[in-house]
Amino acid sequence: MNTIGKILTLTTFGESHGPAMGGVLDGMPAGVTIDLDELQRFVDRRRTGQTLGSSTRDEQDRVEVLSGIWQGKTLGTPIGFIVCNTDARSKDYEEIAQCYRPNHADYTWEAKYGLRDPRGGGRASARETVARVVAGGIAMQALTRLGITVEASFLPVDPVEIERAVADGDTMGGIIECTIKGVPAGLGEPVFGKLHAQLAAAMMSIPSVHGFEYGDGFEMAAKRGSEVMDVFVKREDGTIGTVTNHSGGIQGGISNGENITMRIAFKPVPTLMREMPSIDREGNPVTLKPRGRHDACVLPRAVPIVEAMAALVILDNYLMKKTNVL
Amino acid sequence: MNTIGKILTLTTFGESHGPAMGGVLDGMPAGVTIDLDELQRFVDRRRTGQTLGSSTRDEQDRVEVLSGIWQGKTLGTPIGFIVCNTDARSKDYEEIAQCYRPNHADYTWEAKYGLRDPRGGGRASARETVARVVAGGIAMQALTRLGITVEASFLPVDPVEIERAVADGDTMGGIIECTIKGVPAGLGEPVFGKLHAQLAAAMMSIPSVHGFEYGDGFEMAAKRGSEVMDVFVKREDGTIGTVTNHSGGIQGGISNGENITMRIAFKPVPTLMREMPSIDREGNPVTLKPRGRHDACVLPRAVPIVEAMAALVILDNYLMKKTNVL
Amino acid sequence: MNTIGKILTLTTFGESHGPAMGGVLDGMPAGVTIDLDELQRFVDRRRTGQTLGSSTRDEQDRVEVLSGIWQGKTLGTPIGFIVCNTDARSKDYEEIAQCYRPNHADYTWEAKYGLRDPRGGGRASARETVARVVAGGIAMQALTRLGITVEASFLPVDPVEIERAVADGDTMGGIIECTIKGVPAGLGEPVFGKLHAQLAAAMMSIPSVHGFEYGDGFEMAAKRGSEVMDVFVKREDGTIGTVTNHSGGIQGGISNGENITMRIAFKPVPTLMREMPSIDREGNPVTLKPRGRHDACVLPRAVPIVEAMAALVILDNYLMKKTNVL
Amino acid sequence: MNTIGKILTLTTFGESHGPAMGGVLDGMPAGVTIDLDELQRFVDRRRTGQTLGSSTRDEQDRVEVLSGIWQGKTLGTPIGFIVCNTDARSKDYEEIAQCYRPNHADYTWEAKYGLRDPRGGGRASARETVARVVAGGIAMQALTRLGITVEASFLPVDPVEIERAVADGDTMGGIIECTIKGVPAGLGEPVFGKLHAQLAAAMMSIPSVHGFEYGDGFEMAAKRGSEVMDVFVKREDGTIGTVTNHSGGIQGGISNGENITMRIAFKPVPTLMREMPSIDREGNPVTLKPRGRHDACVLPRAVPIVEAMAALVILDNYLMKKTNVL
Repeated sequence: MNTIGKILTLTTFGESHGPAMGGVLDGMPAGVTIDLDELQRFVDRRRTGQTLGSSTRDEQDRVEVLSGIWQGKTLGTPIGFIVCNTDARSKDYEEIAQCYRPNHADYTWEAKYGLRDPRGGGRASARETVARVVAGGIAMQALTRLGITVEASFLPVDPVEIERAVADGDTMGGIIECTIKGVPAGLGEPVFGKLHAQLAAAMMSIPSVHGFEYGDGFEMAAKRGSEVMDVFVKREDGTIGTVTNHSGGIQGGISNGENITMRIAFKPVPTLMREMPSIDREGNPVTLKPRGRHDACVLPRAVPIVEAMAALVILDNYLMKKTNVL
Repeated sequence: MNTIGKILTLTTFGESHGPAMGGVLDGMPAGVTIDLDELQRFVDRRRTGQTLGSSTRDEQDRVEVLSGIWQGKTLGTPIGFIVCNTDARSKDYEEIAQCYRPNHADYTWEAKYGLRDPRGGGRASARETVARVVAGGIAMQALTRLGITVEASFLPVDPVEIERAVADGDTMGGIIECTIKGVPAGLGEPVFGKLHAQLAAAMMSIPSVHGFEYGDGFEMAAKRGSEVMDVFVKREDGTIGTVTNHSGGIQGGISNGENITMRIAFKPVPTLMREMPSIDREGNPVTLKPRGRHDACVLPRAVPIVEAMAALVILDNYLMKKTNVL
Repeated sequence: MNTIGKILTLTTFGESHGPAMGGVLDGMPAGVTIDLDELQRFVDRRRTGQTLGSSTRDEQDRVEVLSGIWQGKTLGTPIGFIVCNTDARSKDYEEIAQCYRPNHADYTWEAKYGLRDPRGGGRASARETVARVVAGGIAMQALTRLGITVEASFLPVDPVEIERAVADGDTMGGIIECTIKGVPAGLGEPVFGKLHAQLAAAMMSIPSVHGFEYGDGFEMAAKRGSEVMDVFVKREDGTIGTVTNHSGGIQGGISNGENITMRIAFKPVPTLMREMPSIDREGNPVTLKPRGRHDACVLPRAVPIVEAMAALVILDNYLMKKTNVL
Repeated sequence: MNTIGKILTLTTFGESHGPAMGGVLDGMPAGVTIDLDELQRFVDRRRTGQTLGSSTRDEQDRVEVLSGIWQGKTLGTPIGFIVCNTDARSKDYEEIAQCYRPNHADYTWEAKYGLRDPRGGGRASARETVARVVAGGIAMQALTRLGITVEASFLPVDPVEIERAVADGDTMGGIIECTIKGVPAGLGEPVFGKLHAQLAAAMMSIPSVHGFEYGDGFEMAAKRGSEVMDVFVKREDGTIGTVTNHSGGIQGGISNGENITMRIAFKPVPTLMREMPSIDREGNPVTLKPRGRHDACVLPRAVPIVEAMAALVILDNYLMKKTNVL
């Protein structure tokens, strides 16, 4: 339940204000060169202190690899890693233990487990994603060796609009686009494990995501078949490709060698920096005061998370494909 | 790879023009009353011969349950079932064996497996979904006993536009909405197995789907946090709920007791009833003549498929929740 | 729960007196030649009517492959198959529905599911194994192409002793040895998925099995380290091997290229052909009369089952190994 | 591949001489009281420095729980933990990097992964089991609350024989018995997931184990059905039980409420404290000198490992059973 993947599996753990976040990346092939400095730089992209009015919580997010990599190479054994939580100020959150914040997981978590860790949202905090980025960063290095690249970016946000939202103590949503290049044709499973179904599950599992589409996505629904037909051609180098890419690089759930394209919709950050009406655990109305440290817009920090999840899915499918022939 | 689910698992098999489609639904609780006539009626909704210019292939789709149900009740054992393919005309497809149809899985399938079954698209045919509907229909009956309902419908399609598309030998896409009512708060797994991530994976695995969103979905991306806040209230009956439902019944990946709402985007049917340019397996240009029998728009037939996938996911999570306490 | 395997997975279904037994073998590589006559002959070895006082139930056990194999080759899609139950005489079993037979699963099944199918033991019947043999027979053909052979046989049984047991209405247990030759070094997972742990799980899942050992097995426990040391040598052909094979072809959970050897202990058939004391569902003492048709000793029929399970495990691990390098 | 369990899953990581061993125990129900001091005491039982000529490597094996337990209770989130490696002396092992030790995993590991970590055997070291004991110790506390106990012990070893073996630089094997009491009837899955098949897989995955049996085990093979019949009785307290327990508490793969009994055979420690003949990586004969620190007999340290694995399997099946009814 805290694991994703089939051959290459990532299992994560950690609460926002516990001693550490961490994970186990299992199934990494042996003998892959991993540059730990490059990995740290990848993880740093997710850190706080970026742009767009982000949180002032200051975590160094130093990656400690505990196993699975030796002398700069993967051993084929599980890669265990942790990232310590050093800047947790749990007292900020004492009030929250008694209330349900709107659009947060406080209420649903209690409904599921009967109790919850209120410190910084516990495991429901987006801090959970640091483990994804560590693992995805490792997968990314393997993909690079295969000539596969993953790049995400967020659609432009009006800076004036953003400043105004911050001034209002309000927050913003947004859309991240992701393109994967160099994926060979033939990756993905044709029925339940369609490549885009796996990507959808991976992206929808990122906190705050409310929508996923690939290729022409929702626009496809309003089109005729003749308008979105990706005609095949034999290219001069002898390879087969398509003239257009409405399909987003995936046909029948399997990659066709074209760029894989997708868009992911993020809702606005639920915690406003202004008073919010809610109820306490007995159902009495309360007014929540702005506390803690939160982003006004998650998009900049979410970019490497999207890339990480994409990298994990693609590498997993790359390995699965090896088993399709005897 | 042909299996979906965690506790309640569905494994399917079958090629479009092989002897039969079928599946195994494992993990169904014991002692659940199943009405096989009701099940057949549910499956019949997916059959050809509905509306919107659909395929003239005439399959009876008679469900044969081979195990797991006895004297009208589930045994707790795997429910094996088949649906025979009786109206397969494989000779329609001989030409296709040598060509790659645009926006189909012909090319990608060969890239993955090195060979493919060209008869009616083999396993890449949407006929594969009949097994999902059988299994989903069984899950649905269990949900009904729990007071949970699943209802999908397609957004209105302009009948004039449809007639024109059929006259042009063209096809249409569309959007299906699905609402799940009566889900208790607390279903779903908070990290990789978020309830909406599971629903997304299930829906995106349906042939032709290109997009998924829940709650306010992509619209959320353009909103401020204050605009989509679902304020909690204690209702007169003592239960806790939210005034609005921008979140679509899921918060932090876990159901909150409100209606679960989602929208699924389908691309237009890729096979046009007119000539299409393509290439053969050597890369030579060819012109594909319209053959076979295909729908102009999959939406009517896809409605019970969406409901079936939703039912499977919800029942699986209902069972998973039982393990959250000792 | 009715599935075994990681990449190559077998899911089975079927009750002893339902319409059919069956299964889905998923993950078989594409393009493997499968001879269905050879498969039928393999399955026939499990049928009744062999030796050692076996059951007189006469099932033809004709394998019907419903998918996944076309024109004599695997498609890479799931191989669905059924074996119809044609000689089921359910009225023999009406009494059993009210009683718990000793050493059978009647009581435990009810404790688990709250109900059971008493017809021929339902899914608890050893008839369930026919699906294993079908799937294992397919895996075996793939192994043969790889130069791997699996052979099992039962340790000699004294024919006089057997005749005496049959005359007494009694039953016998026994031991089956299995040797796998030609397995390349490097198969198996080093921690929880040790090759012998997977083999143990597969063999212990066969009805009536009470013990498993590999290599020198339980004898190892009474030996000194110096007595069971398999010294390495470089052979004339340049390959590395061991002089002895106390380790049974597996070291650290991974195959070392030597023959894999194991022994499996079967308990005596629990149903005697004479009166047996028991209780009914209310706990009242009853005397069970001999009914139905049962083997006096399962060993001859169990030999192909053991081979089938071994073949499934080895092929699965062969496929898994492909993912150990990029 | 480094994960065991279905609902309650344990994923482990760590090399013998890396920074730490660790694991993630996922699927633990929420709200279970865990006493960390009691857990440490359980783990201490596995530590070196016990009896029977054990290793002089001195690890403190201090358990650091990083997540999933808060204020003495489980949160329902994954329990991440590490145990640091503090007494690793890697230089002892430089020679081993170039040679294959007999009955070790050096050769097979290289055959599988193409490389290996020679420091203390890397992940093939029995030090890997410390993570199992931590996780099993947590599971054990949950079982205790359910009235289930797990107790293992090794069959008596002749002290004179042991002293002689140590004096000879030789090693010993042995047998561990394990009894689980208080398991309710109805746990286990009837086909591939038979309770004894799961226990067998768990026990056979412990380093050095070569055999597993439950109930009367291998002795069953030489018995008649009438000799091992466990006759049912209704006891005075109204419960149903059996007069004898040849079946070892499991019938048809499902617990019947009697004590679950099993025996596990361990081979002698492969590293002798005297010269051993072997080959290097080029196949040249070498003589290995005794180095490092190793046990002469693993039995005392293996007892809590056996208990830990049993606890994990039983608790997992306890949770699975909850899903058998709606």
